[in-house]
Parts: sequence; C-alpha cells; structure tokens
Amino acid sequence: MSIPPGESAPNVSVGELNARYDKFVVDLLGVIAYGELSAFERLSSDARYSPTLHDRAALGRMAVAEFEHFEVVRARLAEMNMDVELAIRPFQTSVDAFHDRTRPADWYESLMKAYVVDAISEDFYRAISEFLDPRTREIIAAVQTNAESGRLLQDRLKKMLTDDPRLASRLALWGRRLVAEVLTQARQVGTEHTFLRGLMADDDVPAARDEVSTLMAQLTKNHSRRMSQLGLTA
Amino acid sequence: MSIPPGESAPNVSVGELNARYDKFVVDLLGVIAYGELSAFERLSSDARYSPTLHDRAALGRMAVAEFEHFEVVRARLAEMNMDVELAIRPFQTSVDAFHDRTRPADWYESLMKAYVVDAISEDFYRAISEFLDPRTREIIAAVQTNAESGRLLQDRLKKMLTDDPRLASRLALWGRRLVAEVLTQARQVGTEHTFLRGLMADDDVPAARDEVSTLMAQLTKNHSRRMSQLGLTA
Repeated sequence: MSIPPGESAPNVSVGELNARYDKFVVDLLGVIAYGELSAFERLSSDARYSPTLHDRAALGRMAVAEFEHFEVVRARLAEMNMDVELAIRPFQTSVDAFHDRTRPADWYESLMKAYVVDAISEDFYRAISEFLDPRTREIIAAVQTNAESGRLLQDRLKKMLTDDPRLASRLALWGRRLVAEVLTQARQVGTEHTFLRGLMADDDVPAARDEVSTLMAQLTKNHSRRMSQLGLTA
Repeated sequence: MSIPPGESAPNVSVGELNARYDKFVVDLLGVIAYGELSAFERLSSDARYSPTLHDRAALGRMAVAEFEHFEVVRARLAEMNMDVELAIRPFQTSVDAFHDRTRPADWYESLMKAYVVDAISEDFYRAISEFLDPRTREIIAAVQTNAESGRLLQDRLKKMLTDDPRLASRLALWGRRLVAEVLTQARQVGTEHTFLRGLMADDDVPAARDEVSTLMAQLTKNHSRRMSQLGLTA
C-alpha cells in the first residue's frame, strides 16, 4: 500500500493511477456514508429499548452524531460532483446483510455492537488515512466518533457487566461473532469492489494481500485489547 | 382559559395558582419532550424503509430535528431544576400506547403519520402558547417543526398520490384514524393528568370544557384543510 496518487509506478500509467485513486476515494466515502446512515437508523431504533430514559437519550445522541457524519460525507461527495446515492449503491446490499446478520437480541447486545463495530471501523479508516490526500483525510477525521461516546459506551458496558456478571459469557460470545462478521464484511467489500486496489501503486497482488493481512491482524489485536478493558475474553 | 399566572381569581389563592401553573408547565414540557424523543425513534426507524436513499436521508434529517427539540426541552427543564425523566414519566405509557396503536404499515403510512401528527401537535401547542409565560412560549416556538419539513412532507405525499391514485382511499382512511387517535390521546392526557387545568384561573369546569371543545374543533378543522391540500377527504 503505497500511493501517493499521481506518482508513477513501473507498469501503470499516471492517468490510470489517478483514475483508480479517485474511484477508490468515491468508494471509500460511499461505504462510510452508508455505514453512518445505517448505524444512525439501527442505533436510534435500538435506543427505544434502553433500560432508562437517560440511556435512551445518550444512545439517541450517538445516533444523531452518526447522521451528522453521513451529512459531512454527502457534502464532500457533492463537492466532487458525485451523488451520494450512486456512491453508496455498490455497498448497500452487503452493509444491509451485515446488519441483518448481526441484529442485536436486546439492549445489551445493541450497546456492544455499537462499541465493537464503531471502534473497528474507525481503526480501519485511521489505518488507511495515511495513504490518502489531505482533503479526504480531513473528512475521515471529521467522522470519527468522539472519544466521549466511546468512553460512555465502555462505562455503560462495564457497569452492566458488574451489575449482572452472567452477561459476561454472552457478551464475550457476541463480541467474537461481531468481530468475525466485521472482518468478513471488510474482506468481502475489499474483494468484490477491488476496494483496496485503489491504494496500490502497482499490481503487486501478493504484496497487497500481505498488507491487508497485516491490517486485519492489527484490527483484531486492538479489538482484543478493548474486550480486555471490559474484562471479557476476545 | 385565562391565566396570567400570579393574578388572583375569586376562589383560588395566588400561591395555589402559581403552583398549579408551574406544575402545568412541567407537564407540558414533559409531554413535549417525550413526544419529540419518541417521534425521533419512530421516524428514524421508519426511514429505513424509504423507497429511495434521498427520502431516507430527508426523513433522517427530520428525525434528527425532533431529537434536537427533545434536547431543547430537556435543557429548559434542567434550568428549572427538573429532571427530564421525572417530567416525562407520567406521559410515557400513553404516548407509547398511542404509537403502538398507530404503527404505520409501510412507508406511505409513516410519512402520513409524520405529516398529520406533527401538524396537529403544533397547532395544539401554538393554541395554548398565548396563555404561557414568555420563556415557555420561546421553548414552544423553538420546537416547532420548520416549515420546510412540512412542505417536504406535503410535496412527497402529493407526488405519491399522483404516482399511485389507489393510495388515496387507504391514506384518507389512515388520516382519519390518526386524527381520531391524536384527539383521543389529547383528551386522555388532558383528563388523566388534569393537564389543562393548570391554565384555568378558576375552577369553572364547564367553561374549561367548552374551551377544550372549541380547541378540538379548531384542530379538526385545520386537519381537514391539510387533508384537502393533499386532495384527500378528511
């Protein structure tokens, strides 16, 4: 994974490289936009089942932040003369399928899903950020969940686990399922849409595959650390 | 319905009047807060079933505005040293029951519900606004749905009805059910919680009942006008 865009590589023309990079950015913004929009819808629906009104409002606030992120990305796509609907379309089915496969059974699982999925997605975006142009990097930074939300989720999950230790094994299992689904999803989006290829300066497929594996390993490691922070085994 | 709070009335002490008025404002803000919070949750869940991504984003934006209204009311209650949870509690069951009884079968009904219920609620709040102190009136004004949302809903509904004229009878029926449920709900909240009594300077129950009937008639009339604007019979 070594662009900078515009710089030539042995066997690909500059024009082709640039086009590939632009396509990559649109794909990236499309998948982020749809991720945010659907996170908003799912989280705000789940909020209704919160045990207290205070939690309900806190989850609602997080959902609203996701919608605002969607709007940031849509505005950036509009700047690029790109319709958000077109940018999203290629990813809609697989993101929807992901959510259908990981439908939380109750409020605890819903909270855990927000905690796990947001964190991994952001690790992923941060990891690829360094290969991006400054304007795109700015957008990625603008849609990061604020640290406060992450802390709030962690505190709430910790409290739940203290209050009801029997939850631990169920949520640990759920966490493992979530991370497996996220990584499957990431690989699938990457493969189907030659998503990450846009970041490759050359067509060195084995090297690209190595990079992806390294990234996946890093995401898994960070996830394990976050689970440990909750006192759960990843 | 004739306060101003603090002014004496034949058979009630000033202190009692003020306490009654304060209780009324807390109740009013409580019911608005919960109305906004649950509208946010319902609308954002329904948004997912929009026929286009454009509609989905538009409904999402409306839902977010409802959440922001909830936050405005919560902040005002906090200023009054009132916990939003306590203010909401008396109305939670009946608002939830209202939503359960008026669960939209599809996106069309969801849009219609937003159109009908938001407009009537706002007519109602506007009607009682003139009896309120300036600060409360300000809050009521801040949580009015902006005209743009109302227009957007109306345009979208009109377009739907043009595209599929068979929808007309179903949506007309749905509109009638919604308005009946809203008015029943309003009467019930008013009766159970002696909600509107806080606005009465004296205990003239028959006069109060007349005022309420006049208000209900006005709400129904405005609703009929809005249905006509869609080409539907109320």
